Amino acid sequence: MSGTNVYDELMAFQRDTEALAQVAGRLGWDQETVMPRGAAPQRSEEIGAMEAVLHARRTDPRIGEWLEKIDPESLDEAGRANLRLIRRSYRRHTRVPGALAAEIARVTSLAQGIWAQARAAEDFSVFAPILEQVVALKREEAAALADGGDLYDALLDDYEPGMTAAELERMFAALRPRLVALRERLLGAARQPAPLCGEFAEEKQMALSRELARAFGYDFDHGRIDKAVHPFSSGSGLDVRITTRTAPRDPFNCIYSTIHEVGHAAYEQNIDRAFLLSPLGQGVSMGVHESQSRIYENQIGRSRPFTAFLFARMRDTFGDFGVPDAEAFFGTVNRVHPGFIRTEADEVHYNLHILMRFDLERALISGDLPVADLPGAWNDRFAADFGMTVDRPSNGCLQDVHWSVGLFGYFPTYTLGNVYAGCLYKAMREAVADLDAQLVRGDTTAATGWLRERLQRHGGLREPRETVAHACGFAPSEGPLLDYLEEKFTAIYGL
Amino acid sequence: MSGTNVYDELMAFQRDTEALAQVAGRLGWDQETVMPRGAAPQRSEEIGAMEAVLHARRTDPRIGEWLEKIDPESLDEAGRANLRLIRRSYRRHTRVPGALAAEIARVTSLAQGIWAQARAAEDFSVFAPILEQVVALKREEAAALADGGDLYDALLDDYEPGMTAAELERMFAALRPRLVALRERLLGAARQPAPLCGEFAEEKQMALSRELARAFGYDFDHGRIDKAVHPFSSGSGLDVRITTRTAPRDPFNCIYSTIHEVGHAAYEQNIDRAFLLSPLGQGVSMGVHESQSRIYENQIGRSRPFTAFLFARMRDTFGDFGVPDAEAFFGTVNRVHPGFIRTEADEVHYNLHILMRFDLERALISGDLPVADLPGAWNDRFAADFGMTVDRPSNGCLQDVHWSVGLFGYFPTYTLGNVYAGCLYKAMREAVADLDAQLVRGDTTAATGWLRERLQRHGGLREPRETVAHACGFAPSEGPLLDYLEEKFTAIYGL
Repeated sequence: MSGTNVYDELMAFQRDTEALAQVAGRLGWDQETVMPRGAAPQRSEEIGAMEAVLHARRTDPRIGEWLEKIDPESLDEAGRANLRLIRRSYRRHTRVPGALAAEIARVTSLAQGIWAQARAAEDFSVFAPILEQVVALKREEAAALADGGDLYDALLDDYEPGMTAAELERMFAALRPRLVALRERLLGAARQPAPLCGEFAEEKQMALSRELARAFGYDFDHGRIDKAVHPFSSGSGLDVRITTRTAPRDPFNCIYSTIHEVGHAAYEQNIDRAFLLSPLGQGVSMGVHESQSRIYENQIGRSRPFTAFLFARMRDTFGDFGVPDAEAFFGTVNRVHPGFIRTEADEVHYNLHILMRFDLERALISGDLPVADLPGAWNDRFAADFGMTVDRPSNGCLQDVHWSVGLFGYFPTYTLGNVYAGCLYKAMREAVADLDAQLVRGDTTAATGWLRERLQRHGGLREPRETVAHACGFAPSEGPLLDYLEEKFTAIYGL
Repeated sequence: MSGTNVYDELMAFQRDTEALAQVAGRLGWDQETVMPRGAAPQRSEEIGAMEAVLHARRTDPRIGEWLEKIDPESLDEAGRANLRLIRRSYRRHTRVPGALAAEIARVTSLAQGIWAQARAAEDFSVFAPILEQVVALKREEAAALADGGDLYDALLDDYEPGMTAAELERMFAALRPRLVALRERLLGAARQPAPLCGEFAEEKQMALSRELARAFGYDFDHGRIDKAVHPFSSGSGLDVRITTRTAPRDPFNCIYSTIHEVGHAAYEQNIDRAFLLSPLGQGVSMGVHESQSRIYENQIGRSRPFTAFLFARMRDTFGDFGVPDAEAFFGTVNRVHPGFIRTEADEVHYNLHILMRFDLERALISGDLPVADLPGAWNDRFAADFGMTVDRPSNGCLQDVHWSVGLFGYFPTYTLGNVYAGCLYKAMREAVADLDAQLVRGDTTAATGWLRERLQRHGGLREPRETVAHACGFAPSEGPLLDYLEEKFTAIYGL
């Protein structure tokens, strides 16, 4: 068999694996949107069975044999990229012993329930013993993956291939002082935007959200929007579904959750159809994925011109809702307000939430921070960066689900996404001359079209950082994000 | 390893297979209810990948090794039944060569599309060539399964284990003359029930359907109702979903489709939880399944006492809808009317539709009826039994999807279901003394409770015919169905 035929055989095998992964992913969508509540015990067995099938395929020894036989030089660019991604997946999945993977699945499933109990009881000591187990297991997994290298890097690599903790540390060290200084200036400013008040009918919020999803290019022929407790995007290729949520007093939650998830979903929907059900046919990393959701939500969706359009549409939808004009609305949408909860944070505070989690989880994985000392370390850091005292664990280190389910190395990709979004926005503004004039009409075609052409359609063709650099035409750094935040928010606060 | 440990190993393997089969089945539900329409090409690859996984597991040689090592006498009744069902599945799946199974999947998938085109074009000649291929492939499959026995029996066995064409032939020969005689008496009667007229708001039909589903014991904690083009029930165990449909001028379609599917779903929901995700944990055959949907829909749902309750609920829901009283309503619900289409047939005509399909498909499989002669044979038989001339293929042999997708041996299970429902109803009336007094209040508790206890909870524990015999306390035959139909309909028609 020639090298090309072997490649075709590998890709046919891989195609079925990708199709099965889509099926497994959709079980999650189903669970959060339409599943009857009594089905949960059976569902967890279904998910376990699907995961076992996927694990067996991803570690199938034939993959190793196929990879050995194929000469990458006989392939085109896409073929070489596929090979690189398959090789990485095979290495990662075969390096972790099956018994360890099963134990991690078992313990994190348990830990998630205990975390929820501890959070409801406001008692970290309930969670500490199982978190210690999770940390120990993740250290063991990291050691298997790292092959002598840095433990945290080995975990990070799962979410952001090629990124290192050292590089993030450098980037975050540049972000932190300017973000802290900015928040202090803004909170001390004489001009303060007013918060939103009133009640907003939920079905009208949903109708407006659907209209905005369409305006941002979401393709309803290959997706759908449902309500769920937590907004998310699910699936790749021809079936990319999103969820959003509504609360009567907080229409921005519904609107900006929708736009955020449309950013994720549009990335998946816009990948070159030639990559369908191949390793290239999905977003290349969590950080790059988050750059798309963030630029849709913030740089475009919370921009002065787009909020002017949104203000008019909200007036059409809800009548006079107490905000006098588009300029005041721009301030209200972008109001900076310190708070304990990451998911409720504004653009200025958000990254400070991430930076502290990054430092804390690195210390947990390195062993420098014992689990028992986590609440104290969290609360000290929060006081330093936010100037506030954590009043209870659910407002502190028990607020996020991530660590309970073993997601160490995931948090920094949120801020990396913001950094990438800052770079992409800088490049987009240079490329699309009359961007603001389009956005003020609610027309995102040029903006989203630029992202589709420059970044989204390429899927996993290049490494994450290269993907952003290729789109921008320059190497990504934290500078553009900081410049964007300082310029936008000092203007809003009249500084 | 002792026999019992080998049994546990086999059952653990089987449990994952059952869980994966649930996942695969839910893809069908998703496709018919919530899937974005542009997702179809990806979905067919997902289904293909799941089917390949399931086929590999069902033919896994370890099953054969485990089966050889286990002594059935070391097991309890449920264990022996599991073993029997696993052995049958393994034998069926391993007897059909993989290449033949794949070719049947490929050709039937193609044939379904061509059937739809031919039906829309009213041109049987478009469908004939691919139907010839399907018939040839199913004959080949039957030969592999039959091991020298009857070809049609081998196909029938997939839907109704233990049943034979000879037994059906005897049963249907007893049904046909009495049904033909009954329909002629009814259609010639002086008293004719009035058809339903008017428009009925679709959301009110859905609300009433949900209420009726609850009244028939459908468990919404382990299921849900959605709208779809064709009503169906999907899933086993803790997640059994149904669909229904609405048409403004035909509320009976929505109401009785719902009750029918609740019959299927209640069977699945009521199986002993100890059988969850085991071979015993699903309805034992298509015929027994249909007995549940039919007895819910017809013997209970279209009974004089229950329609009196339904009449009152419809008056509450829709106001005066032109039917003067409960007695007239009972007639309208049960109006006998000849028609070309099986799925629209009343209780008297329905089985005549099935009897002719049974004879025709046996002749196709035996080779006695060439595909080219099918329309003529269909139309002749239809004229003989229904006294009507088929005006176009979509009202004749192109009306049903079954043969295009290779479902030979499936049709007779519909009438077998009616026959079993007749037996069960006879036994139920003897067991539940004041049944009518309960049904007139809309209370189906005793009726559905009797079915649950006597039949549904046992799942696949006994062979299909034994399952019904155990529930009834007598051997099933066509007599009770004929007696029921003659008694009910001559009364309605004042004969």
